[in-house]
Amino acid sequence: MSAPHFDKVALIGLGLIGSSLGHAMKRAGLAKHIAGHARSEATRKRALEIGFVDSVHGSAADAVRDAGLVILCTPVGALGAIAAEIEPHLKKGTILTDVGSVKLAVIRDMGPHVPQGVHFIPGHPIAGTEESGPDSGFPELFDNRWCILTPVPGTDHEAVEKLSAFWTACGSTVDVMEPKHHDLVLAIVSHLPHIIAYNIVGTASDLETVTQSEVIKYSASGFRDFTRLAASDPTMWRDVCLNNKEPILEMLARFSEDLTALQRAIRWGDGDKLFDLFTRTRAIRRSIVDAGQDIAAPNFGRNPPHPKPGGESNQ
Amino acid sequence: MSAPHFDKVALIGLGLIGSSLGHAMKRAGLAKHIAGHARSEATRKRALEIGFVDSVHGSAADAVRDAGLVILCTPVGALGAIAAEIEPHLKKGTILTDVGSVKLAVIRDMGPHVPQGVHFIPGHPIAGTEESGPDSGFPELFDNRWCILTPVPGTDHEAVEKLSAFWTACGSTVDVMEPKHHDLVLAIVSHLPHIIAYNIVGTASDLETVTQSEVIKYSASGFRDFTRLAASDPTMWRDVCLNNKEPILEMLARFSEDLTALQRAIRWGDGDKLFDLFTRTRAIRRSIVDAGQDIAAPNFGRNPPHPKPGGESNQ
Repeated sequence: MSAPHFDKVALIGLGLIGSSLGHAMKRAGLAKHIAGHARSEATRKRALEIGFVDSVHGSAADAVRDAGLVILCTPVGALGAIAAEIEPHLKKGTILTDVGSVKLAVIRDMGPHVPQGVHFIPGHPIAGTEESGPDSGFPELFDNRWCILTPVPGTDHEAVEKLSAFWTACGSTVDVMEPKHHDLVLAIVSHLPHIIAYNIVGTASDLETVTQSEVIKYSASGFRDFTRLAASDPTMWRDVCLNNKEPILEMLARFSEDLTALQRAIRWGDGDKLFDLFTRTRAIRRSIVDAGQDIAAPNFGRNPPHPKPGGESNQ
Repeated sequence: MSAPHFDKVALIGLGLIGSSLGHAMKRAGLAKHIAGHARSEATRKRALEIGFVDSVHGSAADAVRDAGLVILCTPVGALGAIAAEIEPHLKKGTILTDVGSVKLAVIRDMGPHVPQGVHFIPGHPIAGTEESGPDSGFPELFDNRWCILTPVPGTDHEAVEKLSAFWTACGSTVDVMEPKHHDLVLAIVSHLPHIIAYNIVGTASDLETVTQSEVIKYSASGFRDFTRLAASDPTMWRDVCLNNKEPILEMLARFSEDLTALQRAIRWGDGDKLFDLFTRTRAIRRSIVDAGQDIAAPNFGRNPPHPKPGGESNQ
């Protein structure tokens, strides 16, 4: 299918994903008009200034009027209320989608508010950075990344094709998946890593015997890698935790079980067991690099190091 | 102190740190002759080819003869045996140091084998990548990174100054610390992050409900960040775990306690608690970037994404 063209697309939420979608649509020429809505007036003003939307609106209801594609880009906890608000204003034939990191809860919350004749297709682009807000977006965010669609049974095939072509034109490769399976996969590849990263950064900042300034100074020995995920948007991640509870708790239980076994191997000095685990994990990184999902350069390519502002004074 | 100059420096172990030290010494002109030893003949041959050493030797004893500075760059589990082997061959006045990530165990293992008149000063450059072997080194590895020295009581002051000037000439900033405190600091900033990374990658590869290919495909949503540390050298990390047991077990216990509290907040839907943790961790990343210990660019600067070899076939 060739790149789809919409007379009007509405972006509800103008943060990292919303702004990147605006840029990506502009780059590919996918919409005659992009209407945006954000709760904060400052965000709306900034979005217009940057220019990834053509108009901004104080209410989501105003933004979606006559749009052929409506994309909700807010934290998942807000989606139910937004769906209820825009329900009377969606035109027949519109495609309604979201970008949330959980899908069963989104279907539970938005499903009841989808009018007859509107094509609701939950979606999730597997792309992001630790930044947020309207200034954080860029057109290449979705390039060479996957986008998962989780249509519910009975969804119009043509609408799924059209949304799929839209994401392809934004740079992504589309996968279709059961919502329940999506939530399980994301619990391990995304939710657990973020929770663990938040947790270890919290543990490190609570020590009495090691100062926070020591943690920061020597962070290049490993710790800094975790701080990137732990700098992600707190509202988004609170909502993910609250809305994908069962799969997350299941993955946390497995992680903790494995960690207990590892801890035991350390306590009893079982070098063979440690060596065995530390060897087999190496292959996975290689596969990720081969699959084009990370760069091959050591240290994520961030060598050689950038200048250090305060270091000299410590000599 | 101006950059020190040694007639001969011996590097025992020619992996990431040994080869980077060779390159850094060449860059700064710190040695007239660099002698290298590695157990494997292939490594010795490769080191000579690359040229970060001037000679290679089949035994550590041969390599250290007449050297004014001897740097042991092997996994810490091997240091005791090497110290015993080279003991009769160290000349008076030589500085003997290491680069191991634990210090009390190194003092325990090497200390008994330090001849009268040899200055033993344990050291640890806080720098590395996930790569290993003689091809992984580069001269900038230590630039703008900290190097910690942990001299034992009674160490010759001038020798400490000279080793400190050596590391400064290699690009680092030097800190002096009690060995016990070093081991505690490193347990939280380096050892725990590596253990957690190895563990989560192990958990993800053991699932029955999510395939390994799914974990790899969607890894850009968070998981891939952990795979870098989990691709580190297995022997080195086995030895760290076996030789810094108490501090690591202490940090693991704190991490697990915190994780249990976080898990409980998820189970009971305590959004405020989650939001609170997810907010305060954000500031730490900012401090690390401000301290020059990581780059400010989103996604560690690895955007825009590189091409994806196999992705297209999935559409």
